[in-house]
Amino acid sequence: MRMSFPFSAIVGQDEMKLALLIAAVDARIGGVMVFGDRGTGKSTAVRALAALLPSVPAAHAGYQDGTARKGQVPVPFVDLPLGATEDRVVGALDLERALGSGIKAFEPGLLARANGGFLYIDEVNLLEDHIVDLLLDVAASGENVVEREGLSIRHPARFVLVGSGNPEEGELRPQLLDRFGLSVEVRTPQDLTQRVEILKRCDAFERDPAAFTEIWRRSQRKTQNRIAHGRAMLSGVTIPDAVLAYASRLCMAVGADGLRGELTLMRSARALAALDGVENVGTVHVRQVAPLALRHRLRRNVLDETGSTARIERALEELAA
Amino acid sequence: MRMSFPFSAIVGQDEMKLALLIAAVDARIGGVMVFGDRGTGKSTAVRALAALLPSVPAAHAGYQDGTARKGQVPVPFVDLPLGATEDRVVGALDLERALGSGIKAFEPGLLARANGGFLYIDEVNLLEDHIVDLLLDVAASGENVVEREGLSIRHPARFVLVGSGNPEEGELRPQLLDRFGLSVEVRTPQDLTQRVEILKRCDAFERDPAAFTEIWRRSQRKTQNRIAHGRAMLSGVTIPDAVLAYASRLCMAVGADGLRGELTLMRSARALAALDGVENVGTVHVRQVAPLALRHRLRRNVLDETGSTARIERALEELAA
Amino acid sequence: MRMSFPFSAIVGQDEMKLALLIAAVDARIGGVMVFGDRGTGKSTAVRALAALLPSVPAAHAGYQDGTARKGQVPVPFVDLPLGATEDRVVGALDLERALGSGIKAFEPGLLARANGGFLYIDEVNLLEDHIVDLLLDVAASGENVVEREGLSIRHPARFVLVGSGNPEEGELRPQLLDRFGLSVEVRTPQDLTQRVEILKRCDAFERDPAAFTEIWRRSQRKTQNRIAHGRAMLSGVTIPDAVLAYASRLCMAVGADGLRGELTLMRSARALAALDGVENVGTVHVRQVAPLALRHRLRRNVLDETGSTARIERALEELAA
Amino acid sequence: MRMSFPFSAIVGQDEMKLALLIAAVDARIGGVMVFGDRGTGKSTAVRALAALLPSVPAAHAGYQDGTARKGQVPVPFVDLPLGATEDRVVGALDLERALGSGIKAFEPGLLARANGGFLYIDEVNLLEDHIVDLLLDVAASGENVVEREGLSIRHPARFVLVGSGNPEEGELRPQLLDRFGLSVEVRTPQDLTQRVEILKRCDAFERDPAAFTEIWRRSQRKTQNRIAHGRAMLSGVTIPDAVLAYASRLCMAVGADGLRGELTLMRSARALAALDGVENVGTVHVRQVAPLALRHRLRRNVLDETGSTARIERALEELAA
Amino acid sequence: MRMSFPFSAIVGQDEMKLALLIAAVDARIGGVMVFGDRGTGKSTAVRALAALLPSVPAAHAGYQDGTARKGQVPVPFVDLPLGATEDRVVGALDLERALGSGIKAFEPGLLARANGGFLYIDEVNLLEDHIVDLLLDVAASGENVVEREGLSIRHPARFVLVGSGNPEEGELRPQLLDRFGLSVEVRTPQDLTQRVEILKRCDAFERDPAAFTEIWRRSQRKTQNRIAHGRAMLSGVTIPDAVLAYASRLCMAVGADGLRGELTLMRSARALAALDGVENVGTVHVRQVAPLALRHRLRRNVLDETGSTARIERALEELAA
Amino acid sequence: MRMSFPFSAIVGQDEMKLALLIAAVDARIGGVMVFGDRGTGKSTAVRALAALLPSVPAAHAGYQDGTARKGQVPVPFVDLPLGATEDRVVGALDLERALGSGIKAFEPGLLARANGGFLYIDEVNLLEDHIVDLLLDVAASGENVVEREGLSIRHPARFVLVGSGNPEEGELRPQLLDRFGLSVEVRTPQDLTQRVEILKRCDAFERDPAAFTEIWRRSQRKTQNRIAHGRAMLSGVTIPDAVLAYASRLCMAVGADGLRGELTLMRSARALAALDGVENVGTVHVRQVAPLALRHRLRRNVLDETGSTARIERALEELAA
Repeated sequence: MRMSFPFSAIVGQDEMKLALLIAAVDARIGGVMVFGDRGTGKSTAVRALAALLPSVPAAHAGYQDGTARKGQVPVPFVDLPLGATEDRVVGALDLERALGSGIKAFEPGLLARANGGFLYIDEVNLLEDHIVDLLLDVAASGENVVEREGLSIRHPARFVLVGSGNPEEGELRPQLLDRFGLSVEVRTPQDLTQRVEILKRCDAFERDPAAFTEIWRRSQRKTQNRIAHGRAMLSGVTIPDAVLAYASRLCMAVGADGLRGELTLMRSARALAALDGVENVGTVHVRQVAPLALRHRLRRNVLDETGSTARIERALEELAA
Repeated sequence: MRMSFPFSAIVGQDEMKLALLIAAVDARIGGVMVFGDRGTGKSTAVRALAALLPSVPAAHAGYQDGTARKGQVPVPFVDLPLGATEDRVVGALDLERALGSGIKAFEPGLLARANGGFLYIDEVNLLEDHIVDLLLDVAASGENVVEREGLSIRHPARFVLVGSGNPEEGELRPQLLDRFGLSVEVRTPQDLTQRVEILKRCDAFERDPAAFTEIWRRSQRKTQNRIAHGRAMLSGVTIPDAVLAYASRLCMAVGADGLRGELTLMRSARALAALDGVENVGTVHVRQVAPLALRHRLRRNVLDETGSTARIERALEELAA
Repeated sequence: MRMSFPFSAIVGQDEMKLALLIAAVDARIGGVMVFGDRGTGKSTAVRALAALLPSVPAAHAGYQDGTARKGQVPVPFVDLPLGATEDRVVGALDLERALGSGIKAFEPGLLARANGGFLYIDEVNLLEDHIVDLLLDVAASGENVVEREGLSIRHPARFVLVGSGNPEEGELRPQLLDRFGLSVEVRTPQDLTQRVEILKRCDAFERDPAAFTEIWRRSQRKTQNRIAHGRAMLSGVTIPDAVLAYASRLCMAVGADGLRGELTLMRSARALAALDGVENVGTVHVRQVAPLALRHRLRRNVLDETGSTARIERALEELAA
Repeated sequence: MRMSFPFSAIVGQDEMKLALLIAAVDARIGGVMVFGDRGTGKSTAVRALAALLPSVPAAHAGYQDGTARKGQVPVPFVDLPLGATEDRVVGALDLERALGSGIKAFEPGLLARANGGFLYIDEVNLLEDHIVDLLLDVAASGENVVEREGLSIRHPARFVLVGSGNPEEGELRPQLLDRFGLSVEVRTPQDLTQRVEILKRCDAFERDPAAFTEIWRRSQRKTQNRIAHGRAMLSGVTIPDAVLAYASRLCMAVGADGLRGELTLMRSARALAALDGVENVGTVHVRQVAPLALRHRLRRNVLDETGSTARIERALEELAA
Repeated sequence: MRMSFPFSAIVGQDEMKLALLIAAVDARIGGVMVFGDRGTGKSTAVRALAALLPSVPAAHAGYQDGTARKGQVPVPFVDLPLGATEDRVVGALDLERALGSGIKAFEPGLLARANGGFLYIDEVNLLEDHIVDLLLDVAASGENVVEREGLSIRHPARFVLVGSGNPEEGELRPQLLDRFGLSVEVRTPQDLTQRVEILKRCDAFERDPAAFTEIWRRSQRKTQNRIAHGRAMLSGVTIPDAVLAYASRLCMAVGADGLRGELTLMRSARALAALDGVENVGTVHVRQVAPLALRHRLRRNVLDETGSTARIERALEELAA
Repeated sequence: MRMSFPFSAIVGQDEMKLALLIAAVDARIGGVMVFGDRGTGKSTAVRALAALLPSVPAAHAGYQDGTARKGQVPVPFVDLPLGATEDRVVGALDLERALGSGIKAFEPGLLARANGGFLYIDEVNLLEDHIVDLLLDVAASGENVVEREGLSIRHPARFVLVGSGNPEEGELRPQLLDRFGLSVEVRTPQDLTQRVEILKRCDAFERDPAAFTEIWRRSQRKTQNRIAHGRAMLSGVTIPDAVLAYASRLCMAVGADGLRGELTLMRSARALAALDGVENVGTVHVRQVAPLALRHRLRRNVLDETGSTARIERALEELAA
């Protein structure tokens, strides 16, 4: 078992960390799409969050093969390889064996492995559409149903889907993008002190992972508590009508297609309020999550070359004014 | 079993709801093609209508595997996945097993599952042509015939086919489009009050589905009665010659290819009259269903950039004048 | 068994009906290619003619599986599905089973089913070339030969091939088109009275097929007699040399490639004379079938934008002058 | 067995008939490529020549399956279907069966069937290159060698290869074209009397094949004698050096690539002299076969738009001058 | 066993040799990408380095088939063939056999063969993306995991990946390029004396490999010692903060995407210091490895046509100034 | 067994014959690539050289199936068919059989057949890249290694690879071209006397191969002796440094990529000296083989349209001046 880099020791990348924390508090938010530069530690961050979360009962995580499992296990992290087949992803149902032996006809796939944890897809734009579609369906329903020739297997597959891709290399179709809950933008940091700090932390971790982890133990504990507290509070957080109207006006102002933008805005603002320990969602929460919830849902405007994030910020300013 | 959002609680989307009600009254209308924005609750609406309809005898719905079934079951709703193979759709006929055991050589497909209910195809324009063709054939004949190497299986497959697609992303060939009975256009609502109402209803349903459903029970009952009454009346509704001539003049005025437009206009106007509890179809019924029955059958006119719906409305005005 | 719409009740579409009657009298005419609009009842017409023809001895129609069959059966009508494989069309020859059991190694295909009747191919331009080629070969020879690994099965496959296609959607290669005997053009009727009449007949048939069929029984009988009389007379009809020269001059005038045009003109004029009960073919018969026999064999003339039918009519006028 | 149209009753098409007669006298000439219009009786002519030739010992013709065959059989004629696989063409060698039973592991293909006769390929330009290549190799060597996994079968496959194609529809690569010995051009006849004569002969043959064949028996006999006499004389015919030099000068004048043109000119002039019963080849023979031997070997000259045949005729005139 | 050309006898190509020595000291550097001309001895150099390194315990190198192996074996060198399949690369896991016999179900692939040595891929840009991705994953983790239908095999696969490619023939996607640790440029030498020296050494080696190797034995020994010494020192070499800041400033100046550039710069400068026997990394080491670590990570700048190497050198000068 | 045309009777084509003789003396020269017109006797020449060479011990030639073979056999000549699969080329390794019987699991391919002789590939540019790559690898190493699922077979495969192609029809990638040792250009002869002589020799050979071969026996003997003498001398021939420098200067002057040009120049000049019976290579030998060794390795120079051969000749003149 390789050790993971501590989540709390990650320098910068605030938007990425925020989206992951929101998903950790409310998995119904849908997947997270990460746009941006290569080599900026995207998979490291997701893997780090998985390692940070408290271990879960073995019966609720990972492989689902029908044997009873006891004890606690770490939160799963699965990295979907380029070129994975549908069978590899959803699991293979072998009819011949099913009829013969009656048992073990289903070989779980990566979705089963990811249950209770995170599924990371680098360059998700290179996957075939029907696999992305299927992943989003399972992520939305929390259940993987495999049917072959009249046999049908279903197992829980609750996970946070995180996809990454560089928009300069071809994009997902808007239909698929729209079904990701949040999106974040990651850039190479441009601050020298920050970069040296990153180098030093990476070097220290590479040379002695155990010692480095020990140093960050306390900071990790604080983040763990914040997540646990947010999860506990979530169902009690309320959203005033005025805040809903604010969210709708914002979506109309930026011209988001459909209503998934508003629904995600509502859910993620509530999760943020829970992380902040606040019982009533305010426009401040909506404003903070707006770029994450709306950026990937904007219709291209040929007459307005402004980027998505800038258009959202402008709309926020106009609403405030 | 997840609960469905109540059909009656759907805000707006009147044209979509009208087409589904017509199809619920007269399934011979052919499929319904839905054009429009993503994230506007298309599959939610179809699923909601299926849940609204009265349960049916188990022997008349869903899987057809030769075993006798008793009691009542809910109306089936099947969501056809992207990338489904022909075998998955029509069912697989396994010759080897057929010869060996004599029984259970046919594994029913999605068409069998949809029998007596609804088959929903998101982004139908991404399906291969021969599968769309096959679906339309089965939807028209109400019967699925699978033939392999001399063996032949046939089972009832009566369902309402609902396809969706965004015309900006590539269209179905006119030949296939023409075989859908009705088409509707769905847009993101642009009214703030309506949008907030949608958010609130979705939130309320998400937080406590049972309580929300209870609130809408009476409204649901009314819609159920309207459908039941329409079905009972349908065969007794008559269409005067003048109304037929009106329908033909309208089709000629808008330049629809072939005669499927007129035939659908006649059938759907009759179903609408039945829903309205009226025994004689009037031009008012023809006018109301005209955009649904003709919009997808118009020949492109390069010299007239007006959209299909506008062209139909203009023709209706000219006929009235 | 669904009832067929009565052939005699079809409104308009005279050219289509003429071609089908000629093919019913002399199947050696080769296939019929139908160009034109969707939704104009093409497959309905072919199915109606099949239903009109007198039933045939079971031994001469449909499946050929080696078992003796008795009695009379209806004339077969087969609708070739989009995406049919070669095995599905010609039949599958299973060598393994052939060696093992000695019997029943051949599973007849759609060609066997169509024997003695009609094979209808909608959108024939979407079939692969080698399948169209094969269908035309079988239609011309009246025999289907399947050879696999040294085994060889042959069975009669005499049928009238009817293909349809919209020339605006891509055409068959001229080589394949040339091998169809006749072609017809079908358009949406533009006469209001005719359209209302069609609506009323369709509605009447849909509501009570048996009653509607009864009304048209006498008209159907007359058409049946005309076909039977034509078949009986055919071999005795003669063609004067002057008529042959007239046919050749016509083909040269319109610039048809090769000699299939002339041969088809000769054969179809003779069949028409037989249908008319006339013993000598006259130029009147040649003139009547000329558009059907030549329209699809004209070389494109870039300097003369006139359509094929118009060019044939102009040539007929000049010859007459 | 369908009867063949008599070779001698074919109207016109002199170049085609000449090429076939040369190939009948000396099969080493290589294949014949036929350019030209559809519907001009190309396959009819080849089939007619095969039927005209004297029957051959069964042991020298057609299927080669190792069983001794006695008596005489007609000269084979094989029509290669569009889309034929390599296994279908060369035969299938089944290793599993070969090891098990020791016998009958080879299922002969179309090449075996064509042995001793004619192999006709309509639209040869639609075949895959490696199959055309293979056909030309076998036609050149007179032997078909099939090798699979160490097993090797060889059987005689001596046949005249005749391919047809319309150059307007895409051409064979020059490398493949060059390996055909002769080429001919076939056009729709433009003479009225000739066309009527063709119609009448086709009609007479269709109506009573036996009677028609009887009428042409004497003419057929004469052609048979001419071929038999030519075959007997062939090895004794000599070619003076001056005639060879004339052939070379001609090839240089027209700019044929490589030396196959000259070699074919030499061989076909000798076969023509033999058909004419002459013992010394003269320039007259070279001149007569020059278009057939050289037309398909000319390099395109962008500055000289003159067709291949015209360029050869011009070179012949200049040489004569 | 063919003898390898001695590494020390390679004339010129200093950058290539430096990169290979760094990778020999610290395999965590990631792969080496070689850009440049064909025929410049790239695979010869890698093979030569493998032959130079001390033999390793058999248990740590090459095939992993579960049998205990004793003694020492040469360092593996594997040349990945064009068109290698994924199974060939990662190994094949045969489920049928696994269930039956329990042993030997895994047939190791090229990755297993390369363990403990070098994997060379000529024209890596012609491999499919998902195989390059997989190779880089394995090279980074040092472990090959093969999973099929629930079975899972893992074996060590520690090797130095060396890919070559000519950027004029299509490039790797930036994402993949970025994951190679170092890159070098190789050019045909333009110095006459050097070229004649190469010819003479090649000729001498070809004519008598053993004698040639003997001459270079001492020089080889020196290089071997340098590598061994560097490996021993590596973990004790330290990098001052100022040097890290220098590396970061350099990366920002040249505009490398992400942080892999800096991390590689840090690691390779440390390996170089170890090869030089120096305990503290200086900017001199960073400067020397900068082109190797950064060249392939530069964003294209359309306004600045200067090549990557030149841009790095210019940045180095500006930093120094 | 067909007789081969005598090598010595080939008229003209001096460059082709020179390259083949060099390859016959030193097979390490690598393959020979032949550019040029079709129908110029390329495969005839290679086949003729194979037939000319002295027969070899059966144990050193052709099929390698493990059975001991005795006596002498002719030098193999293998003509690789268009569309040959990799299994056909390298041989098929059948794991199932290997495990069952232990013997004869390897069915040798064309490479095994060519061992000790010549492998001719017409239109090598139509082969897939990875097969050309593999052929060049085997030709270079003299050994064919087939590996499948852990089984490994290796057998000697020493042959001279001769590929032909017309550069006007698409070229090999420069990487592959560069790996052929020599290249020659073949043109249709433009001299009348030469052409007539070719016709007469071909005719004489066709009519009586045995008599023709007898006439050329003495000339063939002389060529055989020249090759035998050259082979014996080869290892003793030396190359002065000045001559090596001359070769390098030439390569730099023409701008050949990499060093394979120089190495081939050195090796082929030595083989030519051996054929000439000279013990020291002179610049005269380098000059004579320069076009063959360098022509296919020149970088395209857009500013200098001169052909490769002309550029080499110009460089030779400048060096001489």
